[in-house]
Formats: sequence, structure tokens, C-alpha cells
Amino acid sequence: MPLLKELDEKGLGVVGRDLYRFASELYPICRSITGNGIRSTLNRIQLQIPLEISEVPTGTPVFDWVVPKEWNIRDAYIKAANGERLVDFRKCNLHVLNYSVPVHATMPLSKLRPHLFTIPDKPDWIPYRTSYYREDWGFCLSHNQMLALAEGEYEVCIDSTLEDGHLTYGESYLPGRSRDEVLISCHACHPSLANDNLSGLSVATFLAQFLSGRDLRYSYRFLFIPGTIGAIAWLARNRETAGRIGHGLVLTCIGDDGPFHYKKSRRGNAEIDRAAAYVLAEHSESSQIVEFTPYGYDERQYCSPGFNLPVGCLMRSVWGTFPEYHTSADNLEFIRPPQLAGSLRMCVAILDVLENNRRYRNLSPYCEPQLGRRNLYRTTGGNTIGTDINARLWVLNLSDGEHSLLDIVERSGIPFATIREAADLLSQNGLLSVIPGDGGGREAWHEEKEKCV
Amino acid sequence: MPLLKELDEKGLGVVGRDLYRFASELYPICRSITGNGIRSTLNRIQLQIPLEISEVPTGTPVFDWVVPKEWNIRDAYIKAANGERLVDFRKCNLHVLNYSVPVHATMPLSKLRPHLFTIPDKPDWIPYRTSYYREDWGFCLSHNQMLALAEGEYEVCIDSTLEDGHLTYGESYLPGRSRDEVLISCHACHPSLANDNLSGLSVATFLAQFLSGRDLRYSYRFLFIPGTIGAIAWLARNRETAGRIGHGLVLTCIGDDGPFHYKKSRRGNAEIDRAAAYVLAEHSESSQIVEFTPYGYDERQYCSPGFNLPVGCLMRSVWGTFPEYHTSADNLEFIRPPQLAGSLRMCVAILDVLENNRRYRNLSPYCEPQLGRRNLYRTTGGNTIGTDINARLWVLNLSDGEHSLLDIVERSGIPFATIREAADLLSQNGLLSVIPGDGGGREAWHEEKEKCV
Amino acid sequence: MPLLKELDEKGLGVVGRDLYRFASELYPICRSITGNGIRSTLNRIQLQIPLEISEVPTGTPVFDWVVPKEWNIRDAYIKAANGERLVDFRKCNLHVLNYSVPVHATMPLSKLRPHLFTIPDKPDWIPYRTSYYREDWGFCLSHNQMLALAEGEYEVCIDSTLEDGHLTYGESYLPGRSRDEVLISCHACHPSLANDNLSGLSVATFLAQFLSGRDLRYSYRFLFIPGTIGAIAWLARNRETAGRIGHGLVLTCIGDDGPFHYKKSRRGNAEIDRAAAYVLAEHSESSQIVEFTPYGYDERQYCSPGFNLPVGCLMRSVWGTFPEYHTSADNLEFIRPPQLAGSLRMCVAILDVLENNRRYRNLSPYCEPQLGRRNLYRTTGGNTIGTDINARLWVLNLSDGEHSLLDIVERSGIPFATIREAADLLSQNGLLSVIPGDGGGREAWHEEKEKCV
Repeated sequence: MPLLKELDEKGLGVVGRDLYRFASELYPICRSITGNGIRSTLNRIQLQIPLEISEVPTGTPVFDWVVPKEWNIRDAYIKAANGERLVDFRKCNLHVLNYSVPVHATMPLSKLRPHLFTIPDKPDWIPYRTSYYREDWGFCLSHNQMLALAEGEYEVCIDSTLEDGHLTYGESYLPGRSRDEVLISCHACHPSLANDNLSGLSVATFLAQFLSGRDLRYSYRFLFIPGTIGAIAWLARNRETAGRIGHGLVLTCIGDDGPFHYKKSRRGNAEIDRAAAYVLAEHSESSQIVEFTPYGYDERQYCSPGFNLPVGCLMRSVWGTFPEYHTSADNLEFIRPPQLAGSLRMCVAILDVLENNRRYRNLSPYCEPQLGRRNLYRTTGGNTIGTDINARLWVLNLSDGEHSLLDIVERSGIPFATIREAADLLSQNGLLSVIPGDGGGREAWHEEKEKCV
Repeated sequence: MPLLKELDEKGLGVVGRDLYRFASELYPICRSITGNGIRSTLNRIQLQIPLEISEVPTGTPVFDWVVPKEWNIRDAYIKAANGERLVDFRKCNLHVLNYSVPVHATMPLSKLRPHLFTIPDKPDWIPYRTSYYREDWGFCLSHNQMLALAEGEYEVCIDSTLEDGHLTYGESYLPGRSRDEVLISCHACHPSLANDNLSGLSVATFLAQFLSGRDLRYSYRFLFIPGTIGAIAWLARNRETAGRIGHGLVLTCIGDDGPFHYKKSRRGNAEIDRAAAYVLAEHSESSQIVEFTPYGYDERQYCSPGFNLPVGCLMRSVWGTFPEYHTSADNLEFIRPPQLAGSLRMCVAILDVLENNRRYRNLSPYCEPQLGRRNLYRTTGGNTIGTDINARLWVLNLSDGEHSLLDIVERSGIPFATIREAADLLSQNGLLSVIPGDGGGREAWHEEKEKCV
Repeated sequence: MPLLKELDEKGLGVVGRDLYRFASELYPICRSITGNGIRSTLNRIQLQIPLEISEVPTGTPVFDWVVPKEWNIRDAYIKAANGERLVDFRKCNLHVLNYSVPVHATMPLSKLRPHLFTIPDKPDWIPYRTSYYREDWGFCLSHNQMLALAEGEYEVCIDSTLEDGHLTYGESYLPGRSRDEVLISCHACHPSLANDNLSGLSVATFLAQFLSGRDLRYSYRFLFIPGTIGAIAWLARNRETAGRIGHGLVLTCIGDDGPFHYKKSRRGNAEIDRAAAYVLAEHSESSQIVEFTPYGYDERQYCSPGFNLPVGCLMRSVWGTFPEYHTSADNLEFIRPPQLAGSLRMCVAILDVLENNRRYRNLSPYCEPQLGRRNLYRTTGGNTIGTDINARLWVLNLSDGEHSLLDIVERSGIPFATIREAADLLSQNGLLSVIPGDGGGREAWHEEKEKCV
């Protein structure tokens, strides 16, 4: 049965509620690119799916980078002279400049001010800021909070540690019939941000759970990693085998109610690019396809010229284009259960195409085979034919070993499901055979790969 | 002299009247995919052009198909209790479900009803229906006729035979200077239907007559065949030599007053596709080019993946899109003499391009040759040049052995006739030579062919 | 420093006035395709730039042509019976049909009339006409002048000589680091016409002067030649080395106030075509790119199929499309200093792209290099990045040895200057290296060249 149909039978309402509940559980954790926040997040995911957790020591060289010190934080605040916590990490973990070095001092507002980050345009929202690779400390607060700070002395405390430790990431591998892999990657390093981080992380977890135990054509690799340094570390440790990734998706910002956006891989015409473009157009009129750019999420690393992997990025609202992005307003009200479920469904629909996109050979290529005597045609001549029969004619006509089902879909304008059913029916009737060892485009990919690596 | 000019000198008015008279003679015959109807049709064509008639015995395997039994019919009716023929084959041969097995019985209306076919939307028209490959019997009648049938007993008679015999088709071959062939194919299996069948058949006959006896670059093969099974039978019997077909046209529905439509071959960029696209755009603003689909007329067989022949389909109104299609309203009033003549003219214009589309080599490729001293340029400098001189510059500039005249036409936007005249003039002046053995695109075709067969 | 920046620092106002003064000095000279007019023009240019002047004897065969006799003229007039010069070469050198053979006779108006050229639509303007290759004589005059001629006898005198001599052209060669050449070609054969001839000639002279003495990647060749026969003579004498021309521009009609037009080379996608298209779009919204046609200025010869050099043509108003073209209205009022300076600037901007359009190799191609520790990234995470950082990411991502900076500009939409600065900065930081011996597209060109020659 097609994956999509199976998902739909589970009921998207239930799935959406489960996804949302899962995201809600993870929301309060103060994650960063290292430390106990991401560790406990991965432990929670491990309750859902088998997950191998890796720890990479501080100082490990990973390509041009070095794994940084591990950061942990217990508490942080700005306290008024009267002892009141005016800015309090315990209320919102965004308040601390992520990766702040420890500080405990009393200082006048004038000395504190350079360490304060606000969004003047959105005076009630707290921004999210980081300083991973330059040692610094700071507080993020709402602009109104800052305006309310009177001149005077403040007790400033960030009770953090920045010490040798590890970078932690999680990996879930589902072996399929082929060693060729589909990569699903999401970052797990943002603190209390819902759409940017938790939406992708939740959908990836549930997708792995949904695929788990199935008989699949491809092997699937799910990565839950800190952004940038995590992807770099994983690629450095898996450089030799990364080439097995034949298709990939970075998932991010897929919980809000914006229209779907798919950002193409660097190649621009990889099978994943074409599958995603088809599926988005088929399932949503307002969806949009975005050209590759080298700025973004971890597709930046997968699509670096040395790898040039066919990895795109699935989003709803595009990061950076909505005001809630990287602020406290990207909270649990900004993501909705039906949106999370719809995003999971879109992923499954794309995988359904990849799993079934084969090339076939018409075993009766000289003229049309007589479909009528196989009950694959209309019975009374003179009438027109339906889409199902038309799909059979298209599949027969283009199954010359060169065209994949997706090629046929693109040329005929007939939905993939109908074309696939036609191919199944024709195969059952002995009229088609699958191209041996066909991976639907991998050959082309290997060639391209060799040129670029 | 260009073919088109010769045709125009004959006078399209006369040609149109002759075409229409010919179609009118053939109209009453009850044709089917086998039997005496198609036989007498071919005999009538034989009075116009040399025609080789082939008979393929029932039971002959042709690729995935088998030649069916031969069908013949003498009479058919539904008679009321009072002896009145309420539905009468002698009035209109569409009344019988084509290929009906014999029946003679008296039965109540309730038992007869499942055997009746009507068009509720067009209550005065009789539909055309067939049942070639499933033994059945039936009557086609106007919806009003059916509504007028009272309950009661009816005498039902179809005086037909369905027995071992032959499938008959006709073939006219005009040898040219090259063995490479242009195929003109039309179906000859529809009974009293004028646009769908007789228009193509008449234009093909007159085109063969017009080309006959001329010194032609290509050999021409005209096929008058029963749809589907006829094309399959011909291809099965000519599998080894079918590859000689370098260009082809299926002619159908070219007698009505709709705008021209050309449906591309499976290849989509074959020389015939480009020639037809150019000629239609040049001769008619409202013409349209339609992408290939595997459903349609016999281009389905010619363009099956094992053959992948460069055969397109020329139509005026596209079959299936006009209400008269496959009904009694597709009669002699639906086709008009000027439309038939205009369609013949369009075919001739396309062939004129194919016949003359050569690649040349500029024998003076370094800088422009001095056209002025050959009286091929304007005399006073400082003025602009006309299209004729411009055409000479284009032909010289692109005659590098790679570009055909049609390439030059497409790039320059200058009409083919002007470009061709320029090439002739430059050749006469020793400035160009034809690429030896040039077939204007056949090389590319052969390569493609090898890949696909 | 980029060439364009250096030019801008000179001040376009000053440059424009100098260009205009130079054109004004050359305006009165009666040039033709041979003779003392072009000789003195070249001598004047020689005061600005080093110029090698070549003399090719009459009768020298140059490809399909032969160098014509040399034409010189001292005086010409049509004199009324009362001795008044009604048409006087000394007032305007356009009055004589260029290349007129000598004549001195008295004749009635009826016999004179076939030798008179006017523009009835523009009754006050004098047309420019030539008769280089057919011996003839004639006068060009305003239509009103002609209408004023009463019947009667006229003394007609053209005091010219047409004798064995030479064809003269000038050449300025600036050697660069590579033997590969950029060709700048303009015609120097038109008499008192300002936009058509003097604008291109002046800009070319100042461009050579501006480039002179600089350390340049390419060698530059400036040709000041009589139109058609001069280009043919030069190509005939430099046939073996013409292939060094990797990029070229014909300059003409670039002094009026029309929007820029760039006519592509015959190849259509040569680096010069892409560079010009980019620069025109970047610098002027109203600019237009025109497809190649084989009619025009000397790109006709450079783009003949035997050479197929990548030479385009830069214009403001397209020749032949403005009424002043080839009339006395194409005078010193028709061209303006700011327009001349702007055209020089456009040339420099195009050359700036060619000079700097290299392919690089990312030396850290696996994942992104860590820009932050090299101070090439923003300092605080969470904010968006600027165009300068974005340009670095693009350059790193596409520097796989295949893509030139212009490729990156086209794909990213970021200005060339920004991309180039990013490449410089990354190179200085050891992250990029130039592809050895890279000529930014010449490899592709050489291949193409071999096919065509």
C-alpha cells in the first residue's frame, strides 16, 4: 500500500495532536549546540525511536572547524538593587545570550547596556542571540523591559560553564533493500523556539517512527544534530559513506500556517528536487519552489562543493521572513497540530514518490499491446477513454528504459499515484518489467558526483 | 518550381470541388476495419492513383494482436409489430453497432434496450459505436427515436457475417531520389463519417496524385488502412524497413472549418515537427501546435517506443473536441471544399520544406564574399538592404555545414521560400555547396533511432 | 583597483568634454575607405595613442575581395549659369557621392538629375551615399535644394582622383599578461558624420589611452579601419592569429542619447555576450540586448562562419533606426559629451568583468570553512547576514573549478564587484585559488572554434 494512504488511515487529527504534544514536552528545555539540553532532548526522542547517540570530544578537528567547548547553564538573572530579578532565565531561557561565559558582578547600567539585546520594532518580544565562537556574555530581553531599567547598579549573574566536554548528536538508521540512503536532517540546538527547531525535530521523529519496521526500497538516515557544527562533525566522521545519500531533506519551520516552500538542492534538478516540486504542486496550490542559495540551514553543508549531495530543504514559512523568527514569539502558539500533521504528510508524499519512482521497460514495445483482451481498455469503441487508461498508454509509450515514472508524470500531467497504479497493473499483466537495479536517477547522480568530489 | 506554387497554379477552387466530389462518392459506403466496405473504398482510390492492395488472413499474428475475423453486412433493422422499419440500416449505416454479430429475433423492448446506443445531449443525432474485439450486437439511433419506441415486441435483424477472411489495406509508393521515406497515413475504416476519415483519405489520395510522376528527393508512402489494427499489421509486415520513414504525417479531421492543429511526434523536435510548426505559423495565425500524447490515431503505433518514428498528426478541429465527432452530424455538410483544398495545400507546404531543407557549406567562409560584383547586393551604399539580400547574408553566415535552411529560417525569422531562393542563387553563383548526401536531420534521427529500438 | 573605479575618479565630466573636443576636431575631415581623409584621421589619433599605420596596395587580394583604388577629393560643386555654387563640397563634404569618379562638364538639369540624391521626407537634410565598387559620380543635397534647381544648364565639377594607391588602417596593440586578445574595432571611413563613426572612434581612442601602461590580464587590440574592406583586409593579413581574439566589441553610434544596445556575437552565449548583458542590465534599466544578425558593422566579418569570433557590437541608438542616421543631421549636435563619457564608462565596466572573470577552486570544499575565526562572518549569531557575507558563501559554494565569477553573479544576482571582492578576500585568506592558466571560458571557446573553422 502506498505510504501516504497508510498515513491517512491513521488519521491526521490524531497524528497532529501527538506531534504537538511531543513538541510541547521538548519546548522548555534550554538547548544549545552542546551540553545537557541537547542531550536530554535526544533522550526524549529515544523513547520514540531507536537512536544512536554520539559524543564528539571538544577539540576534535572536523574539516576546517574544531569541536568547541561544552556549554551548560543552571541560572542567570539581572537583579535590581531591591533584589528583584528583572530578567530571569528561569522564566525564559532565551534571556541568556546562548553560549554566554559565566559572569557574576555588580555594575552600573551604562556598563551593562552593551551586553543587552532587544528588538525595538517588537517591544514585547525577546530576541534569540548566540555567541558560539567568540567568548562573550549577554542578556536578551524585551525592548520594554530594557526601557524600564533605571540608571543604577545591577547584579548580573550567568551561572554557566564553558569547559572541555562533548558535542552530542543523534542518528536513527532504518535499513532498506538498498544501501542507498535518504537523509532526513534537522537541527536540535535551539532553546525554546517552536517553529524553528521543534517543528522539524518532531516531524522527523514521527516520520522515523512511521517508517520503522516497513519494507523500504531505500535505507533512511535521520540526523538530530546541532546546526552547522553538528552537520560538519557528522560529515567529517562519515565522509567516505556520505555519497550513499541519494536524496535528502532538511526539515525546518514546518509547524506554522504558512504555505509550503521547498528550497532546491545545489544541483537544482536532482530527483528530490523534482519529486518535491511535483508533490508540492500536487498537494498545495500556494506552495512555492525556491532556488538554492548557500545560506540557510544544514543544506549549506550537505551542498558544499566537496559533497554536493542532493539535499533540499522543506519549510512552510521561510526562516527570516516572518517576524516571529528567532524571537520569543516563535512559541507553542505559533505552531499548530494540523500544520505539523500536514507537514508530516507532505514528507511522506515525497518519500512515496522516491520509493516508487522506477524506470520500466515495455516488453511489447512494437505498437501498442492489445489492452482490450486483458480487460485494461474500454469495452465499446467510439467513446473516449478515462485517465486510468490514458495513464496506461503513457506508461507503455515512455517505458523505454530511459524514463522514470516521475518523468512520465511530468510529461503527461497525470498524478503520480495514477501513473504508479498503471505501472503496477501493466507489470502484473506481464507488459512491463522494472529496469534491473534501477534506482530512479542514481546512475546520473553517480556520474555527477564523481565530477564534483 | 516549388510544389506549393505548382499547386496554387492549378487553382484551389477546382481542387476543392474535386476533393469534395471524391469524398461524397465514398460517403455512403459502410466501411469497417475489414470487409467489402474498405475493399470497395480502396478500389475507388485505385481509380485515382496506383494502389497496391494487401489482404492479411484472419488469425495472422501481428505483434501483440491477431487479425480478426472479417465482417460484412447486408441489412439491419428494428421492425415494429406493424412491419414498419423503425431503425433502418439502409437509411444510415451508423445505425448498426459496427462489427455486430448476426441476430434475428423478436424480443420485448426491455430486452432490446441494453443493445441501443443514443446521445441524450444531441437527441437528433445517431452515435457511431463499434465492438471489434468483443462479440456483441447493437443499434445506434437518435435519442428521440428511442424515446418514441413504445413498450412491446420488436423484430430485430442484423444480417451480418463475422467469419474467417482478410484484413485489407492499400499502399501507394512513389519512389524518390532517396530511399528515405515520407509516410502519409490515414484510416479508411469508418462508415458514413465525413471529417473523421473521408477528409484525410481524400486529401491523401489527391496528394499522392499531385506528387505522382515528379522528381522528388524523398520516396513517399501513402497508407490507407483500418485504424489501429491496420497500422499494426503494416508495421508488423514492414518492421525491418519501417526505419526508412524519416518524416511522417497522419491525416485526419481536415475537412471542417476549424483552425489547423499539428500534434507533434513522440520525439517532439523531429524535422517534421519543426517543419509543420513553421508552416502552420507561416500560413495561419490561429493554428496551434499540440504536444504528443500516446492517445489518438495511428501515430500511437508509429510512435510506440519500439519504433519511435518521427510521425505527427495534422488536423483542423481536434477529434473528440467537436460535438459532431463520431455522430451522424459528421456528414457531408460538416466538411467544405475550400477547407479540403486548404488542407491539401498545408500538406504540400510542409512537404515543400522537407524536400528543400538542406544544409549547405559556405565556400567563402572567411569574411563575407563580395556580393556586389556578382550583382547580389544593392548598388548604392548608405541605404538599407531588403529581405532578399538579408536572406543571402543569413544563409552565408549559417552555412557552416551544421545548420539546415530550416534552422536559418527559425533563427532569422525570414520565410522559408526567401531563404531557399537565397540558397539557390548563392549556389548558382558558386558560393555554396550542398552537404554531400545531406538528408537535413536524418543523421540525428538515425542515432536516436538506434538508442530506442 | 577596478578599472571602473579609476575611471570614475578621473571624473566623467572632464572625460566627456575631452571626448567631445576630440570628435569635433575630426568632424570636418572628408574620410572615405581609402585616401588622405582616413590617413589624416589616423595621424590625429596617433597624437593620443601609439598607433601602427598599415598601407595595403590597391589590387591586393583579400579573401574574396580586392583592395580598391585610392580615392581623393579636392573640390566639388554644382554651379549655376551665374557662377553661384548651388551645391558646394567646401560647405559639407556629404554633398559628394563618396568615391565619385572625376567629372567636369556642363549639362542640362535633366541629365544631372539621375546623379542627385535627396531625402524627400527630411527636405532640409543631406543624405550620405557611397559608390565604392561601381564607378559612378553624384551629388547628395537637401530635397529643398533640389526643388530650387530651375531647368537650365549647370556646371558640374568633381575634382577627385581614383587611382592605384593604398588602403590605410591603424592598429594599437597593448600587450597584457596573456597573448589572448580583446579586440576593440571601429570604422574610420565616414566623412562628416558624428554618431556613426566619430563616436566609436573617439571612445576607442580614449579607451586605448586609458588602458595604456596598465598591468592587464588580456592583450588589447584596437582597430581603426575602413568599414567592411578594412576588416576584411585586416583579417586576411592576420588570419593565423585572429583566433587569439577571445572577446571583442565593435563600437558604433555611441554618442547620442538613446539607451544602450548590445548586439550579441554569432555564438550568442560567448563570455563577451554574457558580460555585456550583465553590465548593461546592471548599469541601465532601459538597455537592451539584441540577437545576432549577419547585417550590421564589422561584426559581420568577425562573425563570418570561417572565423566565428566572439565579437559583439555596442551601440546606443541602433543604426538605421533613427532618422538622423546617414544624413547631415548626424552632426556634432547629435552627440553629447555626457553620452560619450557614459559609453566609455560602459566599455570599461565590461572590460572590468572580462579582466576579473576567473574560476577559482575552493580549497576547503568539504562543508563551509569557518569564516568566523577569520573575521569574515558576523559576530553575533541569530541575526541575518549582509550581501558581502552572502557573496562569500556563494563564491565558496560555486568555486568548484567549473564556475566563473560571472556564473556566480548570474546565479546569485549579486553584483560582480561584490562577488569579485569576496573572491579577493577569500583568496587572501587562503580559502580559494585561481584555476591555473584560467581564461574564464576560453577553453569552451577553443573547442567551439575548432568545430567551426
